[in-house]
Amino acid sequence: MHELAVSSEESDVPIERIKIGYIGGGSRSWATTLMNDLAQCTDIAGEVTLYDVDYDSAQQNAELGEWIQSHDRAVGDWEYEAVRTMEEALDKADFVIVSTQDPPAETMAKDLELPQEYGIYQTVGDTVGPGGTLRAMRAIPQYRQIAAAVRDHCPNAWVINYTNPMTVCTRALYEEYPDINAVGLCHEVFKIQALFAELIEKYLGAEDVPREEIGVNVKGINHFTWVDEAYWRGEDIFDLITKWIDEREPVPRFEPGDLKDESYFVDHDDVTINLYQQFDVLPAAGDRHLVEFVPWYLSVDEAEEVQRWGIRLTPSEYRVNHWPEGEKERQKRFESDDAFEFYESGEEAVEWMRALLGIESLKTHANTPNVGQCPDLPKGAVVETNVLVTSDSVKPLSAGALPAEVRNMVLTHVNNQETLIEAGFEGNVDLAYQAFLNDALVTIDATDARELFTRLVEAEREYLTHWNLEGSEILRTESKSTSRANI
Amino acid sequence: MHELAVSSEESDVPIERIKIGYIGGGSRSWATTLMNDLAQCTDIAGEVTLYDVDYDSAQQNAELGEWIQSHDRAVGDWEYEAVRTMEEALDKADFVIVSTQDPPAETMAKDLELPQEYGIYQTVGDTVGPGGTLRAMRAIPQYRQIAAAVRDHCPNAWVINYTNPMTVCTRALYEEYPDINAVGLCHEVFKIQALFAELIEKYLGAEDVPREEIGVNVKGINHFTWVDEAYWRGEDIFDLITKWIDEREPVPRFEPGDLKDESYFVDHDDVTINLYQQFDVLPAAGDRHLVEFVPWYLSVDEAEEVQRWGIRLTPSEYRVNHWPEGEKERQKRFESDDAFEFYESGEEAVEWMRALLGIESLKTHANTPNVGQCPDLPKGAVVETNVLVTSDSVKPLSAGALPAEVRNMVLTHVNNQETLIEAGFEGNVDLAYQAFLNDALVTIDATDARELFTRLVEAEREYLTHWNLEGSEILRTESKSTSRANI
Amino acid sequence: MHELAVSSEESDVPIERIKIGYIGGGSRSWATTLMNDLAQCTDIAGEVTLYDVDYDSAQQNAELGEWIQSHDRAVGDWEYEAVRTMEEALDKADFVIVSTQDPPAETMAKDLELPQEYGIYQTVGDTVGPGGTLRAMRAIPQYRQIAAAVRDHCPNAWVINYTNPMTVCTRALYEEYPDINAVGLCHEVFKIQALFAELIEKYLGAEDVPREEIGVNVKGINHFTWVDEAYWRGEDIFDLITKWIDEREPVPRFEPGDLKDESYFVDHDDVTINLYQQFDVLPAAGDRHLVEFVPWYLSVDEAEEVQRWGIRLTPSEYRVNHWPEGEKERQKRFESDDAFEFYESGEEAVEWMRALLGIESLKTHANTPNVGQCPDLPKGAVVETNVLVTSDSVKPLSAGALPAEVRNMVLTHVNNQETLIEAGFEGNVDLAYQAFLNDALVTIDATDARELFTRLVEAEREYLTHWNLEGSEILRTESKSTSRANI
Amino acid sequence: MHELAVSSEESDVPIERIKIGYIGGGSRSWATTLMNDLAQCTDIAGEVTLYDVDYDSAQQNAELGEWIQSHDRAVGDWEYEAVRTMEEALDKADFVIVSTQDPPAETMAKDLELPQEYGIYQTVGDTVGPGGTLRAMRAIPQYRQIAAAVRDHCPNAWVINYTNPMTVCTRALYEEYPDINAVGLCHEVFKIQALFAELIEKYLGAEDVPREEIGVNVKGINHFTWVDEAYWRGEDIFDLITKWIDEREPVPRFEPGDLKDESYFVDHDDVTINLYQQFDVLPAAGDRHLVEFVPWYLSVDEAEEVQRWGIRLTPSEYRVNHWPEGEKERQKRFESDDAFEFYESGEEAVEWMRALLGIESLKTHANTPNVGQCPDLPKGAVVETNVLVTSDSVKPLSAGALPAEVRNMVLTHVNNQETLIEAGFEGNVDLAYQAFLNDALVTIDATDARELFTRLVEAEREYLTHWNLEGSEILRTESKSTSRANI
Repeated sequence: MHELAVSSEESDVPIERIKIGYIGGGSRSWATTLMNDLAQCTDIAGEVTLYDVDYDSAQQNAELGEWIQSHDRAVGDWEYEAVRTMEEALDKADFVIVSTQDPPAETMAKDLELPQEYGIYQTVGDTVGPGGTLRAMRAIPQYRQIAAAVRDHCPNAWVINYTNPMTVCTRALYEEYPDINAVGLCHEVFKIQALFAELIEKYLGAEDVPREEIGVNVKGINHFTWVDEAYWRGEDIFDLITKWIDEREPVPRFEPGDLKDESYFVDHDDVTINLYQQFDVLPAAGDRHLVEFVPWYLSVDEAEEVQRWGIRLTPSEYRVNHWPEGEKERQKRFESDDAFEFYESGEEAVEWMRALLGIESLKTHANTPNVGQCPDLPKGAVVETNVLVTSDSVKPLSAGALPAEVRNMVLTHVNNQETLIEAGFEGNVDLAYQAFLNDALVTIDATDARELFTRLVEAEREYLTHWNLEGSEILRTESKSTSRANI
Repeated sequence: MHELAVSSEESDVPIERIKIGYIGGGSRSWATTLMNDLAQCTDIAGEVTLYDVDYDSAQQNAELGEWIQSHDRAVGDWEYEAVRTMEEALDKADFVIVSTQDPPAETMAKDLELPQEYGIYQTVGDTVGPGGTLRAMRAIPQYRQIAAAVRDHCPNAWVINYTNPMTVCTRALYEEYPDINAVGLCHEVFKIQALFAELIEKYLGAEDVPREEIGVNVKGINHFTWVDEAYWRGEDIFDLITKWIDEREPVPRFEPGDLKDESYFVDHDDVTINLYQQFDVLPAAGDRHLVEFVPWYLSVDEAEEVQRWGIRLTPSEYRVNHWPEGEKERQKRFESDDAFEFYESGEEAVEWMRALLGIESLKTHANTPNVGQCPDLPKGAVVETNVLVTSDSVKPLSAGALPAEVRNMVLTHVNNQETLIEAGFEGNVDLAYQAFLNDALVTIDATDARELFTRLVEAEREYLTHWNLEGSEILRTESKSTSRANI
Repeated sequence: MHELAVSSEESDVPIERIKIGYIGGGSRSWATTLMNDLAQCTDIAGEVTLYDVDYDSAQQNAELGEWIQSHDRAVGDWEYEAVRTMEEALDKADFVIVSTQDPPAETMAKDLELPQEYGIYQTVGDTVGPGGTLRAMRAIPQYRQIAAAVRDHCPNAWVINYTNPMTVCTRALYEEYPDINAVGLCHEVFKIQALFAELIEKYLGAEDVPREEIGVNVKGINHFTWVDEAYWRGEDIFDLITKWIDEREPVPRFEPGDLKDESYFVDHDDVTINLYQQFDVLPAAGDRHLVEFVPWYLSVDEAEEVQRWGIRLTPSEYRVNHWPEGEKERQKRFESDDAFEFYESGEEAVEWMRALLGIESLKTHANTPNVGQCPDLPKGAVVETNVLVTSDSVKPLSAGALPAEVRNMVLTHVNNQETLIEAGFEGNVDLAYQAFLNDALVTIDATDARELFTRLVEAEREYLTHWNLEGSEILRTESKSTSRANI
Repeated sequence: MHELAVSSEESDVPIERIKIGYIGGGSRSWATTLMNDLAQCTDIAGEVTLYDVDYDSAQQNAELGEWIQSHDRAVGDWEYEAVRTMEEALDKADFVIVSTQDPPAETMAKDLELPQEYGIYQTVGDTVGPGGTLRAMRAIPQYRQIAAAVRDHCPNAWVINYTNPMTVCTRALYEEYPDINAVGLCHEVFKIQALFAELIEKYLGAEDVPREEIGVNVKGINHFTWVDEAYWRGEDIFDLITKWIDEREPVPRFEPGDLKDESYFVDHDDVTINLYQQFDVLPAAGDRHLVEFVPWYLSVDEAEEVQRWGIRLTPSEYRVNHWPEGEKERQKRFESDDAFEFYESGEEAVEWMRALLGIESLKTHANTPNVGQCPDLPKGAVVETNVLVTSDSVKPLSAGALPAEVRNMVLTHVNNQETLIEAGFEGNVDLAYQAFLNDALVTIDATDARELFTRLVEAEREYLTHWNLEGSEILRTESKSTSRANI
């Protein structure tokens, strides 16, 4: 990939100068984290080229990057530049970061609001459920385009995707360009390591146990991963979970409405515990994600009722308003005289690059095509397991099979995601509708389901340009019955 | 198996004398059909030994059988006897018919009534859903016992099962005795052949087309089978379906309550059509069965609402009362002076026996363990496809793969059925609960689901004697929260 | 496919008028058989269009066909025509018969002669071994072309292939045109049915048992099929084999040279018996074929030694001379005044057509792509099993798995055949060489193997026009070592 | 497993005190290496309990161990003890080392000598071929016994096997005790890393590149592993192989007899190169092993001829004599006054223990049951791939599929090995014979193969005590024909 030179006098591992292309380079939060982490890294250096459909936002991030670099603590040597085309960002890139923002927040709001009219509530709506499905339908054409550009401009680059729906976006990259070197990263699993770290401190008397010390065996799909083994310093510590649960109040522990003053993002692990008690294997994502993959937690008549499971729904207004706030925050930085506050981000993108450059191996988890690491899930589907990252190489670790009924739950979603990819590459809306229908949250009357899907597609028509909407039977046929939702 | 003698002067295919053991021989309807069919068959003869937990009922059937034989039109040579043990019925049997009646109708009524308290409605309740799941839990130990008795008393006999849940009962036979020669027969698919026959008459001008002339490619699991090819006299006639649907009123065509005066068993093909329109392959079971396999037709607030799909719920009182009526009807026969009215039963048990005896090959469909006929469903699971029945041999015909999202729906149930078998053989209630939770109709709150399951198990405790109820975590833990169902 | 009319007064199954396109229509033996069979068939009629690269030969067959039709006993109504292009033969054909003759017999002779220089002897050389491999390499481009023409001119026709290497030719048709309706027919398995018929007569006292009455379960690949079940009139008769073998002299029973005066095609079942004794399942092809699939019967120093297994090698001169003889025989017919002698051919092509036209179902065996009928062989590979032929439909019967070590033997060849197809479609000689090396008969030194392959390719260069010979590494590199074969 | 204590003041990773049980503890070479390595390790300590069927030999090793510990450079804290039962060695062991010596060297000599009478030559004879097959037959019962003892006495211990046939021994452990934590270690693959290190030095100008720095992707089975990726410091270096081969003389480069004065263990990489040139993927075992897996290198008439491939046959006398020499060497140590010379063993057993204890992760390769790491090889078979060793956990890295024809070669052996395991657990000699026949080197006449097998079994009868020799058909039937070998 880059120039290899083994000539340094002092060290035979020279500092690498690399190019990072950043797609979605106008990103409000993720870009800052990357800049922070790069500035503190001493063994790689180079340039970051920011591309965004919103050029101004990328330009502001370039300025932010240069400003961060101007601090003394910025020991790394990095240059930032905003560019007007994806091609410029990717040209000869060694690494590509992808972190794109879906079309306007209003669109995402519709993903949540319309289903509510039919009694379908979602906490997040970015992965599965009606919201995740529509988001996937918007994302697939974009990710085909990115993969095609990688093939043309930096075919051997390592592509790190941070965008949801993680599985579908990463899968679309591979479907378009099977030889792509792409991984999807998500920090959701870190939480389960952190939980074990806490339990070690609580029950084994250790102090300040870092989450990286906890070995967990991860398997499943993004936001619906499961852990069945946990180790620390040579010991099996999985049973600490049982100890912990036994000491807690039985779940569910709340009444509808109990959490109305909590943060929208509150998580009491109650769904995690409930699923564990029923299936004997530990879910590794936050409760707000887990509830969207099965029909047993969001089947409520009023939004408030979901609080019985220790979670809240994020109102769509919050999503609409949150976006400009991110903008304001970035703006404030420049206007103030305060220096940049460097921090431990906890994110691993820089560790990934160092490992791929052969500097230091990394064992972590990632979303990659299934080549056997999840032996009971379809080959080629994107799954989330542990991986070992070394010189120019990412190898999934064999995760073993899931218990049969957990696999049953996971497989439904894998099948739907695979169908969405096929549908998206064909532009076949009716096939996408089959996946929509088979989603775990779509347990409404068939007539209503079709009406809801039709309304969602209509509402987001402008973002579904690569789909053959005219050829659809599902959309075309006027539903003659009165929708139950309108009764 | 039986004595083979090729010595007859007139014909070298002698009349076979066979023994048929009938488990559930007190059966009110099925036994009569068999007697009717045997009496009209000239190329096999022998004895039928009836065993039933209700000996008197078997004894009455034996008398009925002898009475039927007393008619002139009874050209076949058959003897009937009721016996007091399963062993006597099976001893040296060539064929075993299994058609057992589940514990008292009151039990089945609970299968339907309790779930309704939680908003889960079922039309039939004998295959999947909470009703089917509990029925499976009661049946598995019984069918293990039958398989073990076959192994001991007639290991090479052909076992023909007619009992629901068809898949689970047949699967339990194989799990207990892998070398058993067992098949599960169900006439549900005949209907789709009959529909094609009608369409041929309607659109191609043919007259009196028998359903047997229609070749259909069947695949899936009992009551959730699918047809993707149809042939008649060398021609592909599958498209007649589209023609037919295009001419009909769009579905759903009814309003809730429209069918309140119809038979409980009304079926307007509306669900069949709706599923076909969405998945491009034709379901081959009646609508009353189909709606129980997916969540989109029974998700109602009131029983009456299901009528929008052209179907009705069978009230549990009907089930409770129906049973004694069968009894009365049989009684009437003896009391009246009317002769037995022979009829064309349309059932195939006698054709099966003739084919297995080498008299005449039979192509039909049946439930058998998957040895590759459904290449995308798990090996060993019981699936329903076409089979060719010849001399001592039943070979499934390769049915090919299902479309991905149809497979997704079918697979969920296959996985649940496999889990139930594993659970039943272990006596593991908590594992059975995992299958219960993952049923397509169990889309209620996790707390309610557990409460419902616990109540069902409690209500039917006496019929779950082989299950380790005491070792269950799910049943033991008192649910501390207030059930939503009670709100 | 053809016009369907249900209007006949006398019968509602009218006589079908069909078109049969015959590729390889100049065939000396096979065409005559077809004409004989068609002439005796009363319920189908139509035209046969003969195409051959040797137009004159096709023309002679057309005349032969018309002459056969001129006899009184020719009750069928058929017309014959020779055409100059494949397109004319296929245009709107209902059925396509393919029975092509490989390039000049001299070429086939080389397939046998060159390997003998390296100690590799073959009895037949048309399926596997160096001979079969080269023949496959010549055939694949031809069969691609045929499949493409079928797609263009009669996409729904049923294609019946009789050409060897059967598996590879049939597989090539599907690789080029996946929706083709093609089957490969071979009468090799008939022999095992005939053997069982003999044993029934011998041990059970029955007389004149027709082979069609014997049900056998067939599985494997062409010329290397296996039988593990046999039934007759409802009885399992497989054990008659053991009885028969126990009464025979132990094999091998001959000394090298014992059979030097026998027919080249002599077969004493000794290899069949030896394989059965070792693997507990019965090979269903003739010994002359079987010995080519494993290394244990042809590993001799002199041709004569193979006689210890009751077989002889066919000298290549025989092959070279046999061809003109077929020609002469046909010629004689016209020159003589004798009438055509109709006969029972024992071939099934006409039965196949009648079954596919919906006239009478047929259970037989055939070579078709694996859709699950051989669950332990790769999907898509062409396998040989029983099939049920009905209206416009051919469905393989589930054959079940092979014993592990038989599967091991079969799988090696399946893998090689799949590799040859891939190589042939890519024109990749070096990939074909990998299959050549892994053939069961290529147990010679790696240097010699390469030299042999190179010489074979050179010798047949003119028939390998679609292969990229120039791009080959294997052919290019001059072997610098002295070949052992020349020592 | 062992006591976990996080209380040390100075470090929170205390020195672990562990117990290592050593089966085959009388081992002449391997035990010394382990003692050497342990003595130099500072972060683990404990006791090593040596068990051997030859107690005296174990006792001598215990003394040797104590003597090594008596040196100043022995910084580790270890105690050695010889015990008289396997139970004592395993009781509460944390780790179990298995390195057993097969029955007397004379037996191994027969494995090589008898086949030579039939023209089958082997270089090593410990893995496949007639020698490997017989060795497997002797080993399987022993390894069942070891696994059973582990289950009883130290069920959670990590078992490290060093004994050949590696695959079969490790597989037998898992077949007997599926929950065993066992791995099979072999340094054969180190060589390919060393080769790449050399090439880096040669072509990239780097110096002293340690083999551990080379990342290779390993897949296959022990002694028949393949490498298709190689990385160093972030760069793909696989192409260095091509460069290297292009510069060398074409292979084969020798004439029969050329190497008659070389070491028996000479290896010129000629087979490696030849296989690579033919299959485009690099074999990772030494040539002496590789030649035994395929029929193209040992198909000679005289032992000397194998030298054309740059290798020699080890005469069986060498094996017979080598054993006492090992003994003498150990003896010499005690008799001399020389201090023990510590060395870098290059073996990884101690690294494995440190990794499993959570001290330092280790990425290496190992033989483990296939849970998906080789997605195209049978699940459960023991395969060799990279693994990541961490706290109490060994996870194979996904290795990806093999090229089709390489898989074809590997699969034959996997199937044979699985058959041998099944045969060994059943005591079924005739099933073992099927695997013997299908071995790549058994390309002799079927009669000879049977005679050879019979003679081998007879010759080693006393070591085949768990096999049902009396029930065998293959052994019983007297071969009536004159063996070709005797001609």
